[in-house]
Amino acid sequence: MKKEVVIAGAGLVGSLLSIYLSKRGYKVKLYERRPDMRKETMSAGRSINLALSDRGLLALEKVGLSDEIKKIAIPMHGRYIHNADGTTAFQPYGKEGQFINSVSRATLNCKLMDLAEQHGTEIFFDHKCDTIDWENNTIHFELPNSQQKKEEFDLLFGADGAFSATRLQHQLQHPKFEYHQYYIDCGYKELTIPPTPSGEFAMEVNALHIWPRKDYMLIALPNLDKTFTCTLFFPYEGKFSFEKLDTEEKVKVFFETNFADAVPLMPDYINEFFTNPTSSLVTVKCYPWVRKDKFALIGDAAHAIVPFFGQGMNCGFEDCRVLDELIDKYSENWETILEEYQELRKPDGDAIADMAIANFTEMRDKTADPVFLLQKKIEARIHEKHPDKWIPAYSQVTFSPQIRYSTAYNNALRQEIIMQHVMLKPGIAEKWDSEEIEKLILEKVSRR
Amino acid sequence: MKKEVVIAGAGLVGSLLSIYLSKRGYKVKLYERRPDMRKETMSAGRSINLALSDRGLLALEKVGLSDEIKKIAIPMHGRYIHNADGTTAFQPYGKEGQFINSVSRATLNCKLMDLAEQHGTEIFFDHKCDTIDWENNTIHFELPNSQQKKEEFDLLFGADGAFSATRLQHQLQHPKFEYHQYYIDCGYKELTIPPTPSGEFAMEVNALHIWPRKDYMLIALPNLDKTFTCTLFFPYEGKFSFEKLDTEEKVKVFFETNFADAVPLMPDYINEFFTNPTSSLVTVKCYPWVRKDKFALIGDAAHAIVPFFGQGMNCGFEDCRVLDELIDKYSENWETILEEYQELRKPDGDAIADMAIANFTEMRDKTADPVFLLQKKIEARIHEKHPDKWIPAYSQVTFSPQIRYSTAYNNALRQEIIMQHVMLKPGIAEKWDSEEIEKLILEKVSRR
Repeated sequence: MKKEVVIAGAGLVGSLLSIYLSKRGYKVKLYERRPDMRKETMSAGRSINLALSDRGLLALEKVGLSDEIKKIAIPMHGRYIHNADGTTAFQPYGKEGQFINSVSRATLNCKLMDLAEQHGTEIFFDHKCDTIDWENNTIHFELPNSQQKKEEFDLLFGADGAFSATRLQHQLQHPKFEYHQYYIDCGYKELTIPPTPSGEFAMEVNALHIWPRKDYMLIALPNLDKTFTCTLFFPYEGKFSFEKLDTEEKVKVFFETNFADAVPLMPDYINEFFTNPTSSLVTVKCYPWVRKDKFALIGDAAHAIVPFFGQGMNCGFEDCRVLDELIDKYSENWETILEEYQELRKPDGDAIADMAIANFTEMRDKTADPVFLLQKKIEARIHEKHPDKWIPAYSQVTFSPQIRYSTAYNNALRQEIIMQHVMLKPGIAEKWDSEEIEKLILEKVSRR
Repeated sequence: MKKEVVIAGAGLVGSLLSIYLSKRGYKVKLYERRPDMRKETMSAGRSINLALSDRGLLALEKVGLSDEIKKIAIPMHGRYIHNADGTTAFQPYGKEGQFINSVSRATLNCKLMDLAEQHGTEIFFDHKCDTIDWENNTIHFELPNSQQKKEEFDLLFGADGAFSATRLQHQLQHPKFEYHQYYIDCGYKELTIPPTPSGEFAMEVNALHIWPRKDYMLIALPNLDKTFTCTLFFPYEGKFSFEKLDTEEKVKVFFETNFADAVPLMPDYINEFFTNPTSSLVTVKCYPWVRKDKFALIGDAAHAIVPFFGQGMNCGFEDCRVLDELIDKYSENWETILEEYQELRKPDGDAIADMAIANFTEMRDKTADPVFLLQKKIEARIHEKHPDKWIPAYSQVTFSPQIRYSTAYNNALRQEIIMQHVMLKPGIAEKWDSEEIEKLILEKVSRR
């Protein structure tokens, strides 16, 4: 008998997981706290566009969805940097032909829910997880009219996001639960660049635009409707901060001084600045993720991360793929499956969480630093010539789903030490593409 | 009009706080989840005796309780080390006349509740905090018969321990709550050394007994009834662990091998080992602790720490004293009081949490290390001769309530660096009490 599966959370990860399990013949019930987003209009202003890359695509491919999703995705081949002095620069993400994809969260989520239903998943909206009875394997929901509903499960997945209600029930009835929840000092605010009067994209479309300003940054990702969704990552407090920019005049002066080339493209930014919410950026690490053969956390509920590596969704999708492979490996012996799922994914979740925080510094600060750019150029050259010996950290995370996040993190730390030596070589700016430097790097790599 | 104060948790800190506030004329209602411990018998087996030291005593003094408490306390002048080879050694905690106090948690708690009621505090037992309505300043309780009760407050204190229910309500309705909860790899188990057949203490009474064995340790604290409460701190998993000691025979062999001199004193240890619960040791750090002028966390609810510095209760009592001083300083302007309370106590709570974890290594491992003991001897000598220039870290924490925990922690780190240099001096074992070493240390101190 196939187990009866309940999944809490019909977001991206919960929906994809339900497809994986329904396709295997499990009876899946997917419970979502919110109304059906396919019928209601989304609350706007806190979306941060998704950057779908190879890990996410690989997981979608396995359920036959990657081609369809590619149709609604806009390739971004690199970072388009808008410097403070008005100059711009393009920094490719990887080798020729490698790119990440700007995707609308709402569109992708709707497609996943449609597909889940086609495969037999039952979706229940407006059901808020209230309590879980771990003795009797029953989850209790609260409905909008204060009605209660309970559902028995053989197997429960908590795919209910960074502030997971199932995780809280798990934590409250666990004698040794590790939990870490912490915020970075910056919040974010969504702004919009509409199409030009002639109906075109207002900037280069196939890029992720960044205005790096050290302590803060503005970014912009393209949408299919020819708008860009901009996100300002900005300190809550301090000299330049949400707290200080408290009048329209101050916002105007700040933007005109710091994002001069963006201001003409954002006709409504002052209004949006005061109307759209300021959202915060949390990291969540916890342990354990599973309870015997009956419960597992997955996606943000297990490992919420900040968005600066574009890996939140990709990591959650990879959770689903890894879990699916383990179902084959252990012939549906769920205790073993969940145990190994946790053993594999916990260190990977921790690694991408730390890398994502580190990447904030890289995006807002180093992308405007000539030494950093030279280093990236050197690494790209070595990667091009010796792809078996050197893969830049960004490429390992973004374009190499065969490399685990935890391995990529270790590699990145080791490579960074090598590159710090290399960058200290006298005259590196002149001889960066010389045989001497190439030899030096390869020698250091081989000595690992 | 004095505010109406509700305190959640009638443990040590909640009870003491209610005394402080009742004495000031506030109307205090103290709500406790458990039944009245003065009427019911305590669930035994997870108490870890308290080590009351100067910070706790100072806080008790301010409400006139310290003399009465001293009557039920047993002075412990130092560590009495039981080495693996059967030798023993006594390590004084401080200078002549400095000591810490073994106190029964239950006795102390009962005395504090009595005094609270004498000062006008109303105590309600069997009231479990369910939810808090922060808009309407109302706390909802659940009673044993499933009845509900609500209580309005002007000011609410969460003194409800490491797994605080009020903290959870605070967290759930806070946009940027930092939360860290983590366990050490060891759990603990309570065992008992009864009086000798002639009714005497079975070991030296005025000491804290330690059997340091690197990865684990046994400790024993004296009680007024001439018993010792022993606590085994022991890994959950691994070669020697709770997991592995799963038969009476294995427990017997393990104890006879490792705690040979303790075994004859513990006639019932094998039974206790399997009957008493294995408890875990959590650290909790969180932020913020307060909500405007209406809520503050205090004691373990704000900063649960492991017991290895004997500071959990002392730190919580110090919270009460500091808060009381701030009430005077800011003439009952509660928003300012709570803000500064948090600003002062959060870094101190973090510091003692970290020092307490570090002290586990010291107790279970270093107290048996000759180099460490020599270092302590050198430090004690310098402290004796130059008390204004050098106070050992342990003494700063334990006997110097005028030094903040955070300051003590910084001092300790700096002193440790100095001592590492000193201990590397060739021939240090011979010249440890020489003028040369004394000069060297004083010179390094003055160069800070």
